[in-house]
Amino acid sequence: MSRESVTVLGLGQMGSALAAAFLAAGHPTTVWNRTPAKADDLVADGARRAGTVADAVAASELVVVCVLDYGVVRELLEPLAGGLAGRTLVNVTSGSPEQAREMARWAAGQGARYLDGGIMTTPPGVGDTASMFLYSGSTEALEAHRATLAVLGDPIDLGEDPGIASLYDAGLLGMMWSVFGGWLHATALVGADGVAAGAFAPVALRWLSTVGLFVERYAGQIDAGRYPGDDATIDVQLATVDHLLHAGALRGVDGRLPELHRELMAKAVADGHGGDSYARLIEAFRPTR
Amino acid sequence: MSRESVTVLGLGQMGSALAAAFLAAGHPTTVWNRTPAKADDLVADGARRAGTVADAVAASELVVVCVLDYGVVRELLEPLAGGLAGRTLVNVTSGSPEQAREMARWAAGQGARYLDGGIMTTPPGVGDTASMFLYSGSTEALEAHRATLAVLGDPIDLGEDPGIASLYDAGLLGMMWSVFGGWLHATALVGADGVAAGAFAPVALRWLSTVGLFVERYAGQIDAGRYPGDDATIDVQLATVDHLLHAGALRGVDGRLPELHRELMAKAVADGHGGDSYARLIEAFRPTR
Ligand SMILES: NC(=O)c1ccc[n+]([C@@H]2O[C@H](COP(=O)([O-])OP(=O)(O)OC[C@H]3O[C@@H](n4cnc5c(N)ncnc54)[C@H](OP(=O)(O)O)[C@@H]3O)[C@@H](O)[C@H]2O)c1
Ligand SMILES: NC(=O)c1ccc[n+]([C@@H]2O[C@H](COP(=O)([O-])OP(=O)(O)OC[C@H]3O[C@@H](n4cnc5c(N)ncnc54)[C@H](OP(=O)(O)O)[C@@H]3O)[C@@H](O)[C@H]2O)c1
Repeated sequence: MSRESVTVLGLGQMGSALAAAFLAAGHPTTVWNRTPAKADDLVADGARRAGTVADAVAASELVVVCVLDYGVVRELLEPLAGGLAGRTLVNVTSGSPEQAREMARWAAGQGARYLDGGIMTTPPGVGDTASMFLYSGSTEALEAHRATLAVLGDPIDLGEDPGIASLYDAGLLGMMWSVFGGWLHATALVGADGVAAGAFAPVALRWLSTVGLFVERYAGQIDAGRYPGDDATIDVQLATVDHLLHAGALRGVDGRLPELHRELMAKAVADGHGGDSYARLIEAFRPTR
Repeated sequence: MSRESVTVLGLGQMGSALAAAFLAAGHPTTVWNRTPAKADDLVADGARRAGTVADAVAASELVVVCVLDYGVVRELLEPLAGGLAGRTLVNVTSGSPEQAREMARWAAGQGARYLDGGIMTTPPGVGDTASMFLYSGSTEALEAHRATLAVLGDPIDLGEDPGIASLYDAGLLGMMWSVFGGWLHATALVGADGVAAGAFAPVALRWLSTVGLFVERYAGQIDAGRYPGDDATIDVQLATVDHLLHAGALRGVDGRLPELHRELMAKAVADGHGGDSYARLIEAFRPTR
């Protein structure tokens, strides 16, 4: 079976990993990078080096672009004058939902199908089916090229709004920083009494899966707009956050993160929602209408 | 095989679940509660109702106490005058590490073995081997009664310091609030563009496991005191947190949580650690010496 050709524009850390994964899976791969030397290893492994962006784009129906930011994407593609017509542009450069939507409109004007992507891994995770690659925009293009894109990681279809992949990306990174923050705070807390980070981590990781079960249940509550506190109420949690603050203060551990959680809980209790589940706190984050 | 007898003091939501699990596993179970009627269902299922705390304690070598707080534990046990001698007291009431250590000293003075516990689930999770029950204090007592305690959930041995189970408990709850906060923020963000919480949750949960892989790696970095940023640096993350803040601000989503993460990252960069991994931020939480 012959594999479809792919072009990769941008061979930084991430773009190189993408091109290498296509090559490893047997896709004829054309590459271009502003600094041409970054293509050398890929060319040694069988990639074709294009001399210009136009030449690179002409080589494949499927064009993947992974550069610094959207400004660079525009800079590279705008001079093409019709070169993208009939092609599929998959843009996995990080940016805002607004930038993605604007790019989709521009691509449509060029007669190209547009798919915006969010890469939820680092370069070593490229090629692993456990890694999520979020896509939104032309779901038709995603279906047409799914087998090829699956070479990079698990393609997740987020629908027709091209801005959604970026929005998920931003939200998920925020979640990551929150997990890191909570875990680092806890690690500092137990560390103050002599527990090694490596001893605490397995328990913390197991606890993360338990917390995941709550997340699943609470998502349903949020969509239903009802927050029954049958297993654990905000009232009870507000009482226990004080144990945490107290234990942290005694040990000199920075308390800004749990203080913020306390503030959110206290507000919900003051608003008369103390008997509800933690999911009620979605209201603390949601835009006020 | 005859099962060992157990006494449970305190039949609130959690104490009732503990007693029910012991009964279901075939342990002769003696129960006591300040409000005796709360024992009725358990008695119907075969539990023995004790008329006094002293009577309840005399019934079993293994005594589990689960009441409101440590003040109540002391109030119930102090009048016993020697009644605990030779027994094992397992206290799963929530409290601070300091309270647990004090209780351990008191129990030693009574000639009792003392095990402090942290229950990392809600009543419906009692009896499930996926639920973690954290124990610290007399590891000898834990080993002697491991099979019985395993009826409640998976017993995790945290060593001889009786305060450590409480400290883990507090830290893990803090982690939970952080996960909830990050997830709620992200849910509000994508929700502003019309994504249902139930649509976002499966992606968020999958992402949680990916983040768990980082946690594992970063724990090793913390113990080693070296934070190589080979896959993702604080510099790069500080740049992307601005996408998140911007997308949130545009949508009117509350930004206090990502602002705090940004503050921690910016401080590390200002201190010259921008090229390090996120694990370096442990220093933002640790006590300053
Ligand atoms: N690395 C990750 O873990 C990761 C994860 C998810 C998403 N991403 C996203 O992937 C994209 C690329 O990241 P990266 O890690 O590969 O970054 P990188 O290693 O810094 O590479 C940047 C790329 O952009 C090119 N570039 C920059 N300015 C340019 C210009 N004016 N004209 C032409 N090309 C220009 C660079 O070309 P030169 O080689 O000529 O400088 C290089 O190919 C970013 O949007 C990033 O947010 C990265
Ligand atoms: N529920 C959970 O999900 C959960 C999870 C982990 C840990 N815990 C911990 O487990 C402990 C009990 O929680 P719970 O959910 O069972 O609470 P609960 O339903 O409110 O029960 C409180 C218990 O304490 C007793 N009590 C309170 N004041 C007393 C007094 N002055 N003298 C004698 N007994 C007194 C109550 O007796 P009466 O029935 O007579 O009022 C009842 O048995 C707490 O420390 C809690 O933090 C609970």
